[in-house]
Amino acid sequence: MINKVFSAKQLDDKDPLRHVAERFSLPPNTVYLDGNSLGPLPKAAQTRAQEVVNNQWGTDLIKSWNCHDWINLPQKVGDKIGALIGAGKGQVVCCDSISINLFKVLSAALKMRPERKVIATTRDNFPTDIYMVQGLLSLLGDEYSIRYIDEADVESQLTDDIAVLMLTQVNFRSGFKQNMEAVTRQAHTMGILTLWDLAHSAGAFVVELDECQVDFAVGCTYKYLNGGPGSPAFVYVAKRHQEEYRQPLSGWMGHKSPFAFTPDYEAQNSVNQNLCGTPAILSMSVLDAALSVFESVTLKAIDEKSKKLQAFFAAEGKRAGLCDYMEIVSPAIENRGSQLALSHPDAYAICQAWIAEGVIADFRAPNILRIGFAPLYLSFADVELAVLKLAEIMRNKTYENEVFQRKQHVT
Amino acid sequence: MINKVFSAKQLDDKDPLRHVAERFSLPPNTVYLDGNSLGPLPKAAQTRAQEVVNNQWGTDLIKSWNCHDWINLPQKVGDKIGALIGAGKGQVVCCDSISINLFKVLSAALKMRPERKVIATTRDNFPTDIYMVQGLLSLLGDEYSIRYIDEADVESQLTDDIAVLMLTQVNFRSGFKQNMEAVTRQAHTMGILTLWDLAHSAGAFVVELDECQVDFAVGCTYKYLNGGPGSPAFVYVAKRHQEEYRQPLSGWMGHKSPFAFTPDYEAQNSVNQNLCGTPAILSMSVLDAALSVFESVTLKAIDEKSKKLQAFFAAEGKRAGLCDYMEIVSPAIENRGSQLALSHPDAYAICQAWIAEGVIADFRAPNILRIGFAPLYLSFADVELAVLKLAEIMRNKTYENEVFQRKQHVT
Repeated sequence: MINKVFSAKQLDDKDPLRHVAERFSLPPNTVYLDGNSLGPLPKAAQTRAQEVVNNQWGTDLIKSWNCHDWINLPQKVGDKIGALIGAGKGQVVCCDSISINLFKVLSAALKMRPERKVIATTRDNFPTDIYMVQGLLSLLGDEYSIRYIDEADVESQLTDDIAVLMLTQVNFRSGFKQNMEAVTRQAHTMGILTLWDLAHSAGAFVVELDECQVDFAVGCTYKYLNGGPGSPAFVYVAKRHQEEYRQPLSGWMGHKSPFAFTPDYEAQNSVNQNLCGTPAILSMSVLDAALSVFESVTLKAIDEKSKKLQAFFAAEGKRAGLCDYMEIVSPAIENRGSQLALSHPDAYAICQAWIAEGVIADFRAPNILRIGFAPLYLSFADVELAVLKLAEIMRNKTYENEVFQRKQHVT
Repeated sequence: MINKVFSAKQLDDKDPLRHVAERFSLPPNTVYLDGNSLGPLPKAAQTRAQEVVNNQWGTDLIKSWNCHDWINLPQKVGDKIGALIGAGKGQVVCCDSISINLFKVLSAALKMRPERKVIATTRDNFPTDIYMVQGLLSLLGDEYSIRYIDEADVESQLTDDIAVLMLTQVNFRSGFKQNMEAVTRQAHTMGILTLWDLAHSAGAFVVELDECQVDFAVGCTYKYLNGGPGSPAFVYVAKRHQEEYRQPLSGWMGHKSPFAFTPDYEAQNSVNQNLCGTPAILSMSVLDAALSVFESVTLKAIDEKSKKLQAFFAAEGKRAGLCDYMEIVSPAIENRGSQLALSHPDAYAICQAWIAEGVIADFRAPNILRIGFAPLYLSFADVELAVLKLAEIMRNKTYENEVFQRKQHVT
């Protein structure tokens, strides 16, 4: 048995973020290691949901577009998200889903590099990212193609026939994290436009879009940003590209003057051009309130606590002998996001058995137990308990119970 | 002065839908003639909003995808909407916005008529419908084109080079209503696929998609379906086309097996293929509950009451001398949807002055005062009061007050 250097209690006591958990409405007797899939409910979001439904929709009805400024909500929320990903104002807007935003950006980017016909991405990118490229190519025809590169050494695989390099910063399975700054710089030396998917980045650690000179980015808001199930996504278009940027999902809300009802589309020369249909006011309002949990908290502090939680998990796991049962398939802590992947042939059933013990993580096919570390509400005591429960499950092979083997939809 | 045949009270007393208003949470001292823009809050939606936020998201967290069946919500809500627009099960799915759904269907439809290169629509269609075609054409290139036809006599303008005919059933300004059955039949004799936008139809009157042999349809849910601000839209793909249908916004939720995370997109051969990103669970749940106001109410009864309300408005307006001030620019009652358009150069200010008196309608540039009749919660007494207030405003020229002339965003 390895001795502990610090107890969970000691670590919690000196955690500068320990009070932030109070901003969330968390269920009792639960350790939630799945905030990287669906963040929990912030109390402010709970209050706002009631306010927007009962008072804004219920009482002020259509007048709310003006009196509650619904009309500017996508920009307002966009700027709030921007502040969390190193984007100056006027470059992020909240709308639609990651998938749809990828389609917009990819189409626009290809137009900006008319002589190039290749979209490059990693084979192990999140499937929807790849599927959206495939869908776009089905419209554009054989002239265009997708090129798969290895995620391990992106820079060396860049060539000057690539129009857009589309990368997810953190691999959804392993947690492997790209060096945004180095990759973007190298891409730019070849004239390649970069599009970063921040699904597992935004709200989890420091992202510096402006400083890294990123061209475009997209991300979702229901993971580390705690916006609620299916909350709207966001898209970033660097200021320098906004004049030239033209995306084809040209709905009325991206028009220069949506309420003039002019016969021809005229794009706004701003990130707002990404707006398409009527904004999802209800869920966007909830998200707007949810973002208040980040007030007076720095991403740096979040990142530091995440690393400590992960190190503590690893140390406790070692003490409990977890390494005898499962393999860590994530890279070293400095090269991964705020998550950890353990592999086991029975990962699905293990995940179910863990849930039955009150510890919620998730499963990624075919054999990954994925653990998210969301430092805003996770304590060291939570991690200690989670390890204890997992070790019990592995030791007693509880997961072999057929109840846990029965497959359900998993997200 | 013309005598009344029936008083508002008499008409309300014998209205078979008079109790349905109780299913809504309506603000006091308000006559809401804008349910064709944003429907009011159903009490069931209010309850569900709390339930989905506090219990499903807050307590059951990620497990809700299974235990509250979030994963099947788009189909479940789709089928409920289907029942209101004459669509058998498995042909409607709830997702995204009208604009985005138009893009999907138009792209898919063009692929189904590879030898044809024309999309036909009316010049006075709702702008976003036209803008989406323009956006699609910007991707497809010069080979394809949009052709504008006159809404008055669509059938005579159909030719066999048209791939898709995209029509909004009810004109958003005038309320002019197309004959869906006749137009679709004539289009089919020329091999043209039909795409109907039901923005101002769904929930307002009887729509028979299957019976009219419509090919595709889209619609929003925040107007007559009372789904809340920015609630997700729907799309209909007739069963007979689902095998061939391929739309390019091929996100993971439209994949045959979204959680297998396979490298290549494989489309579901069903209407579900229109799913793209993660569904907007929060607002879709609220919409799901909102649809319960239609239980034990027929669209026929809604339509009949709408016509009576409109006739009563016209009769009362005549009695009050409104015709001296404003012109009706809608077609006769049998050729329009559940709305009425009055024109006046100061329509914007008149609308504002009416709102100040507690009567909410809306303005459509440049000169239309648009009045929606939503029979589920509107009484004849409401209509009587609305006319009275409008007549006062016109007589006293209250709208000339600069407070009412000051423009705001309008939706």
